[in-house]
Amino acid sequence: MSEFKNVTAVKKANVYFDGKVSSRVVIFPDGERKTLGLMLPGEYTFSTKEKEIMEMLAGSMDVKLPGSNEFVTFKAGEQFIVPSNSSFDLKVNEVVDYCCSYINE
Amino acid sequence: MSEFKNVTAVKKANVYFDGKVSSRVVIFPDGERKTLGLMLPGEYTFSTKEKEIMEMLAGSMDVKLPGSNEFVTFKAGEQFIVPSNSSFDLKVNEVVDYCCSYINE
Repeated sequence: MSEFKNVTAVKKANVYFDGKVSSRVVIFPDGERKTLGLMLPGEYTFSTKEKEIMEMLAGSMDVKLPGSNEFVTFKAGEQFIVPSNSSFDLKVNEVVDYCCSYINE
Repeated sequence: MSEFKNVTAVKKANVYFDGKVSSRVVIFPDGERKTLGLMLPGEYTFSTKEKEIMEMLAGSMDVKLPGSNEFVTFKAGEQFIVPSNSSFDLKVNEVVDYCCSYINE
């Protein structure tokens, strides 16, 4: 699916790390919320509230998931899941375009 | 209007200048297209095909419009118009969040 139809797009961006990470919110008719985001090269740590499914649309980054001591590389076409109420570390190698889904458990 | 309802959001970002400028396309029911974009500090030149209305959602930048020799500062809440088939120069001072509308003439 290359586009989301019949959604609400929030105009203003969410901006983090001086704009090196940014995202925009898309809301679906059933109330589900996803973000479409971009991350420039750098190292970042993020915290989750809800469980997140991170789908890589472009680029590449190394990800250290909660409970792991190792960075694993994820590339365009791959995805990973981050548990709720946790944090994860990222090393972005090439500009990452992503879609994040939030799962209420 | 802080959000666009009943639109199609294209998933993949448009990425320029190594990600320092990026945008996402939103398509309206009548076929109108807008982009929501972010620009990090830097100097950029852009070309237009259609006439563009650039609405500043956040940040500040100096803009030299076609036919002008001077840079004029635009800030959040302001907008400017760029003629079709022209080019304009930007000096982004503070991360700019914008909404661009494309006008077929």
